[in-house]
Amino acid sequence: MQIVMHQTHQIIGDFDKIYTEIETHLRDSKKGELHLYPELYFTGYPLQDLVLQRTFIERYLAFFDKVNELFESSKDNGAMFLFGGLHYQFDDSNLPIKIRNVIWKGISGQKLEDVYTKQLLPNYDIFDEEKYYEPGKEANVITFESKNIGLLICEDMWFSSSHDEDPITRLQDYISEKSIELDLIVNLSASPFFLGKEAKRIQRASLIGHKFGCPFFYLNMVAFEDEIIFDGGSFVTNGDEVIAQGNLFRADLLKVELPESKPAKTISEKAEIVENTWESLFKPSLDLTQRPPVLPQLSDEDCQTILEAIQLSVQDYIRKTGFKKFTIALSGGIDSALVVAILSLIKTQEQELEAIYMPGFYSRGISYDLSAQLCQNVGIKLTTLPIKFFHSSIKNSFKDNFGEDLEGLSDENIQSRLRGALLFARSNQTNSIVFNTSNKSEIAVGYSTMYGDSVGALSILGDLYKSEVFQLANYINKKWKGIIPEEIITRPPSAELREDQEDQQSLPPYERLDAILEGLLSYRLSLKELHDLGLDQNEIEKTYDLYNKSEYKRRQFCPIIKLKAKSFGFGYRVPITKSFK
Amino acid sequence: MQIVMHQTHQIIGDFDKIYTEIETHLRDSKKGELHLYPELYFTGYPLQDLVLQRTFIERYLAFFDKVNELFESSKDNGAMFLFGGLHYQFDDSNLPIKIRNVIWKGISGQKLEDVYTKQLLPNYDIFDEEKYYEPGKEANVITFESKNIGLLICEDMWFSSSHDEDPITRLQDYISEKSIELDLIVNLSASPFFLGKEAKRIQRASLIGHKFGCPFFYLNMVAFEDEIIFDGGSFVTNGDEVIAQGNLFRADLLKVELPESKPAKTISEKAEIVENTWESLFKPSLDLTQRPPVLPQLSDEDCQTILEAIQLSVQDYIRKTGFKKFTIALSGGIDSALVVAILSLIKTQEQELEAIYMPGFYSRGISYDLSAQLCQNVGIKLTTLPIKFFHSSIKNSFKDNFGEDLEGLSDENIQSRLRGALLFARSNQTNSIVFNTSNKSEIAVGYSTMYGDSVGALSILGDLYKSEVFQLANYINKKWKGIIPEEIITRPPSAELREDQEDQQSLPPYERLDAILEGLLSYRLSLKELHDLGLDQNEIEKTYDLYNKSEYKRRQFCPIIKLKAKSFGFGYRVPITKSFK
Repeated sequence: MQIVMHQTHQIIGDFDKIYTEIETHLRDSKKGELHLYPELYFTGYPLQDLVLQRTFIERYLAFFDKVNELFESSKDNGAMFLFGGLHYQFDDSNLPIKIRNVIWKGISGQKLEDVYTKQLLPNYDIFDEEKYYEPGKEANVITFESKNIGLLICEDMWFSSSHDEDPITRLQDYISEKSIELDLIVNLSASPFFLGKEAKRIQRASLIGHKFGCPFFYLNMVAFEDEIIFDGGSFVTNGDEVIAQGNLFRADLLKVELPESKPAKTISEKAEIVENTWESLFKPSLDLTQRPPVLPQLSDEDCQTILEAIQLSVQDYIRKTGFKKFTIALSGGIDSALVVAILSLIKTQEQELEAIYMPGFYSRGISYDLSAQLCQNVGIKLTTLPIKFFHSSIKNSFKDNFGEDLEGLSDENIQSRLRGALLFARSNQTNSIVFNTSNKSEIAVGYSTMYGDSVGALSILGDLYKSEVFQLANYINKKWKGIIPEEIITRPPSAELREDQEDQQSLPPYERLDAILEGLLSYRLSLKELHDLGLDQNEIEKTYDLYNKSEYKRRQFCPIIKLKAKSFGFGYRVPITKSFK
Repeated sequence: MQIVMHQTHQIIGDFDKIYTEIETHLRDSKKGELHLYPELYFTGYPLQDLVLQRTFIERYLAFFDKVNELFESSKDNGAMFLFGGLHYQFDDSNLPIKIRNVIWKGISGQKLEDVYTKQLLPNYDIFDEEKYYEPGKEANVITFESKNIGLLICEDMWFSSSHDEDPITRLQDYISEKSIELDLIVNLSASPFFLGKEAKRIQRASLIGHKFGCPFFYLNMVAFEDEIIFDGGSFVTNGDEVIAQGNLFRADLLKVELPESKPAKTISEKAEIVENTWESLFKPSLDLTQRPPVLPQLSDEDCQTILEAIQLSVQDYIRKTGFKKFTIALSGGIDSALVVAILSLIKTQEQELEAIYMPGFYSRGISYDLSAQLCQNVGIKLTTLPIKFFHSSIKNSFKDNFGEDLEGLSDENIQSRLRGALLFARSNQTNSIVFNTSNKSEIAVGYSTMYGDSVGALSILGDLYKSEVFQLANYINKKWKGIIPEEIITRPPSAELREDQEDQQSLPPYERLDAILEGLLSYRLSLKELHDLGLDQNEIEKTYDLYNKSEYKRRQFCPIIKLKAKSFGFGYRVPITKSFK
C-alpha cells in the first residue's frame, strides 16, 4: 500500500482548477494507492463568511456534484481518495443550518462518502471555526487494502486539557470497542505557520503514533491567505522517526510505502503535552537570562525560514491579485531598504521592482546616496520624486486659506501623506502593487502616519520588531555579500520629518522597547511584572500609553504577513475606545 | 419592593468612575430596593482581548477588591445590588484559564457573591464570546424580600433551536424541582442596537414572562463601542403590558414597584420564536412586492431613530477620544452634505464644526455654490482650499521624473488622495476629528479611493445604502426646513474626478444597485436568485464582480456606525484573496 500525499497549493473557491486536478489524479491513480488531500481541499481555507454566502454555496455544490459524478462514472481501479471538504445541511427554506468540515472518501464506481467530521474547532486567536461549523462527535476508522486507518482533521490532534472532548481518547475508545488495531493515522490539515511550529507538529504526531503503535501521516496545505501562511511541511512519523518530509512553503507530492514495522506502543520520551490554545500563546518570547530581558536573537535558520515565508506570501498574494510590478518607497532607512532587498531576492525574472525616493526639506543627502547604492546593488531603478515644492505649496496654501501655518505634527504628517499619495499615484500609473514597510515596533506604538508611511496592500515586516529587522538585514548581508549598504543598518533611525529628528527622541531604545512590547503584546506580563523583570518604569509606562492610544491606527492598517504565534491582524482584537489610563 | 434599574452609560475599563458610582448608589440606597446594573457593568462591554491582558486583569481585580471591601465594611441597609461583572479563575502560574460573565450580588455587610453565569455565549456576526468565556450550565433563583428572582444575562433570553442548551428550559426545570414560583425575572444585558430590534426584545420578554407568570425586567446599557451601539431602552413587561420604558440612546434610571398582579401563565398571542443567530441575519431587507425588488423605504420614525443612534455614536466617540472639533470635506454631493447636516444638528454648543471645499479641475461651480449654501444654512464656516495647482504640479513632476503622464485612474485617484492628505493636515492643525462620508453602496462596490475619499476616524453613513442616504436627507429637510439645498439631493451623483463624470457611468442606478447589494450582503440570495426576482443579469454580475474585488479596500476602512442587522465591520469577515470569478 502506497500513500500518496498531495501537499497542494490552491486558491480559495477556484473550483474549475481543483476539479481538473482531481480528474488528472484519478486518471493516473493505481490499485493500492491511498491519495490524501489537505483539510478543505475542495474549497480552500479559511473561508470565513464565504461559507455562508449563497453564491459560494451554489458554486460549491455544482463542483461537488461534478466530482461525485466523476467518481461514480469511473471504473474502479483499486485506489482510494480522501479529500477535505464541506458537508452542508439545509433547512426547508434552503438555508445552511449545519455546516461540517469533513473527509470525503472517493472510490471509483461509487458516490463520494462522508467518513469523518472535524471534532475540535479552533476558536482562539485567528480562528473562528465555532462561528461557522458544527463539530463532529465521533471517531472513525476506515479500511483500505485490509489496513485500518484512523482519521483526524487538523486541530483534532491537538487535544488539550482545555477541551471537554478529546478526539484521541474517542479514537482509542473506538478501537478498543471494536477490538481492532490501527495500521496508520491520517491527519488532513490546514495549519497556519509561525516560527517554531514545525517541531511541535512532529513531536505531537510522534506522541500519538506511539500511543496507537502506528505511523502518523500528517498532510498540510500550502497557501498564503490574507495574512496567514500555510507552510506545507507534510511528514510521516513512525514512532520517533520521521520517515518522509515534504517541502516547506512549496507544493509537494510525497509517495510513501506503508512501513512494515510499527513503533512500540509506548509513550515517546520526547512526548510532552503541548497545548494549542489561547494559553499556549500566553508566552512572550523573551530572553530572560538577561536583565533587563531582551528579545531572543533570530538564528540564521530562523532568518532563512522568515525569508521563505515572505517569499510564499508575496508570490501567492500577487498570483491571486494579478500584479507583476512592485513599487516601494525608499527613505534611506532600514525598513524600506530591507523590503527592497527581500523583494529583489524573491522576485522572479518576469516581475519588475522599482523604487521611489521622495526627499523633503529634512531628508539628508546621505539618505539618497544610500538608497541609490542599495538599488545599484540589487539592480533596480530608483526614481527621485522630490516633495519639497508640493510641501511648501501646501504650507503657503494653508497660510493663505486658513490664516495659520502648518507646524509641528501637522507639518510632519503632511510630508508623510504626500509621499503616500504619490506612491499610490505611481502604483496606479504602472498597475503595480505597493508593499508596506512598517515594522511591528512602529505599529505597536503608532509611530507612523496613517495614510502616510503606513500605506500598502500588504505588510511584509509588520510581524517583526525593529530589533529583528536589523537581525534579518544582517543575515541578508552575510549571505548575499552586503547588498544592503552597511550605513543603512548602522545609522540612527529617523523619520526625517523635522530637523535632526531621531526615533529615540520619541521612543525608548529599540532593544528595550521591543522587550516591553513583546511582554505586553503576548499578554503574559503586566506593567508591574515588566518592571519586576528590571525594565525601566518610565519606559514601560510610556510604551503602554503609546500602545494603548494607537489602536485606531492599527484598525485601518493593511494585512500583515503573520510570522509569529501572536501577531497584529485578524487574531488581535482590542477595543479602540476605552479608558486610556 | 422597588426595582431600581440603572441604565448606565460608561467607558470600558474606567474603574475609578465606576467605583465612585457604586459608592454613591450604595450610600443612597434603602431597604427593599433591588438595584440592577447591565451585563459586565464592572468593566464595560465588549472587551475582546482586553479580558486576557494582564494589565487589564490586575486593574480589574484591584477594583473588584475595593468594591468587595466597600460592601463588606458597610452596615446592612436592606438593599440588594445585582452587578454584571467578570469572574476569573487562574491556574498555578496565574494565567486566566476560565473567565465567566456573571452576576455579582452585593449586600452591605457581606462579601460580593457570584450568583449566576451567562449560559448562552453569542458567537455569530459581531460576537466572539465563545473565544473568551466559559458558559454557565445552571439556572439560579435568588430571593430578596421573600420574592423569588430568576436570573438571566442578555443572550440567555434568546434561546433558539440552534442552541443545544436552553437557559429558559433550565430555569423551568429548576423551579419545578424546587417547587417554587418566580415573582420576577431579571435580565442584565449589553445588547447591540440595530433598526427594528427593540420590538423583538419586548416581544421576547413578554413571551418568557407569560411562560413563568411573572414580570420581566430587561436592563440594557448605553454606549457606543468602536462600531456597536448599545441603545439602552430598558423596560419592564408584565404579561403583554409594558409597565416601564427607559430612554433610547441615553442613560436613564427606572424605579419600578414590583406589580401586585402577575400575568397569566399562558402563551401570549404575540409570541413567536424569533431566533437570534446567524440564521436570523440571513434575511435581506427587501420590498418583494415590487419587481424588481427595492429596498424598503425608511419611515420617518426609522430616520429619527437613525439620527439618535448617530448622535450617541458620535458624542460617545469624541467623549472618549477627547476631540472638540470636527472637520468635514464637502464635495457638493449628497453624502458629505448629509454628514455636515447631521453633525450640525447633533453637535453641542461647545463643539466646533468646520467644512473644507477642495475644488479641482473637474469640480463644477455649482458644487461650491451648494456647499456654501449648506454651510450658511447650518451656520458653519466653509474654507476653500483648491487642489488644482498641487494637482498640476504633481502631474508635471510625474512627467518630468517618470516620463509618463498621470492619466485615467491614476489622475482621478491622485485628486482624491490629495484631498485626503489636506483634510488630515487640517485635522492635525486644529486637533479636530475627521468623519468619513462614504455610504454602504460605495463601500460595497469599492467606488472610492483608498486613502482618498475613504479616510476618516469613524464612518457615519457607512451602514446606509445610497438610496437611504437620500431618504435620510429628505427627512432632515422636511423636519428642519430644507437645511440641505434641494439641488444637492436632486443632482446626479458624481465624484467629479474627470470631465462630465457621473456615478451611473460606472454603476447601475442606485435603486437597483442597492437592492442587489442588500440581497448579496445579507447572504440570502445568490446571483441566480437575484435574477429570478427580476433584477438584471448584467447588473447583478457587474455588482458582484465589483463587490468581490474590493475586499482589500474594506479591510483598511475605518469603523462604521452599525445601524443594521448585517453590516460591514467587525461582524463581516470575507477573505481578500480568493478566486475572483
